[in-house]
Amino acid sequence: MKLHWSPRSPFVRKVMVAAHELGLAERFETVRTLVSMGMPNAELLHDNPLSKIPTLVLADGRVLFDSLTICEYLDDLAGGGRLFPRGEARWDALTRQALGNGLLDLLILWRNEREKPPAAQLQNFLDSFATKYRATLDKLERDAPRLAAAPFDIGHVSLGCALSYLDFRFADLGWRDGRPALAAWHASFSARPSARATEAIDG
Amino acid sequence: MKLHWSPRSPFVRKVMVAAHELGLAERFETVRTLVSMGMPNAELLHDNPLSKIPTLVLADGRVLFDSLTICEYLDDLAGGGRLFPRGEARWDALTRQALGNGLLDLLILWRNEREKPPAAQLQNFLDSFATKYRATLDKLERDAPRLAAAPFDIGHVSLGCALSYLDFRFADLGWRDGRPALAAWHASFSARPSARATEAIDG
Repeated sequence: MKLHWSPRSPFVRKVMVAAHELGLAERFETVRTLVSMGMPNAELLHDNPLSKIPTLVLADGRVLFDSLTICEYLDDLAGGGRLFPRGEARWDALTRQALGNGLLDLLILWRNEREKPPAAQLQNFLDSFATKYRATLDKLERDAPRLAAAPFDIGHVSLGCALSYLDFRFADLGWRDGRPALAAWHASFSARPSARATEAIDG
Repeated sequence: MKLHWSPRSPFVRKVMVAAHELGLAERFETVRTLVSMGMPNAELLHDNPLSKIPTLVLADGRVLFDSLTICEYLDDLAGGGRLFPRGEARWDALTRQALGNGLLDLLILWRNEREKPPAAQLQNFLDSFATKYRATLDKLERDAPRLAAAPFDIGHVSLGCALSYLDFRFADLGWRDGRPALAAWHASFSARPSARATEAIDG
């Protein structure tokens, strides 16, 4: 399987953490693929016309994306029901995954906005991103005991990668301040072999 | 079930089309909820800290989002395996869903960008959105025969809503020009009772 990959993409990291958790990481041939919102990658467009990573090309030529599809495919390859629980627990897991992915979408837009030339930055966008970020982190702090008690699933992968991305690109926010339960949960996430093997590097 | 809803959101429409296809539309109590990227909705933040719709509140108080989670939940309520196929067909369906959702994400960013004051618009972003839009539509034109032949699934829902959103917000692009097979497929989508019952209105 060929994975369009980058060491800095938090969505790629989700897939890599899932693959390590499921014992499948060695099945990937990773291809370093550079994408950014303002510059499509001409080669990647052939496999994914949205020019986004992760994108997975299977041995038979089928192409799978985005991170949600690929992670569930990997879970199925490993027997199913491991990171994507069945039954009622599934809806909590998928909503947690959506919260982690949605936080990442927000952070990436925020980073794009604050790196624009000052004349191109919109203050109401910056304020809106900050409000949603705080609401999300505060909710996660309240939910941290439930998060820590639940069996590790794709929601934990997504939230763990989102919090690590805060450290990587928004260290100035000091997200741990006033959120000790969430910080403790993230420390337990970061200690997992799957997380340690996939830490973002700025290279 | 309480659904945070808007008649103009294409992601809400996905959920409504799925609900109509599955015979569940009358189970919703819809609550008109206004969101935009630059202005969080203070009330919605209690249910979804990302301030995004659709957000579904179940009778027992559990909250589900985003559209992917809600659509799969509805499919399960209706017995499972109807819009979310099992087996190998699932990965094509989920990738098509990701393509439709990714196209919508792109179009919403594009619309935000082109409605900014001229000094705040970035030309490389506008060019990038246009390139990805064309690559996606051209791929869909090539894939239209397969799309038309496959049993109707969540991927069709997502792509149908994305193409309808082009008509709603980007009529100036003339997306049907040079894409007769895709236009024919979209006409068949638009004729379904589930699509007719959920057309976007600018109100």
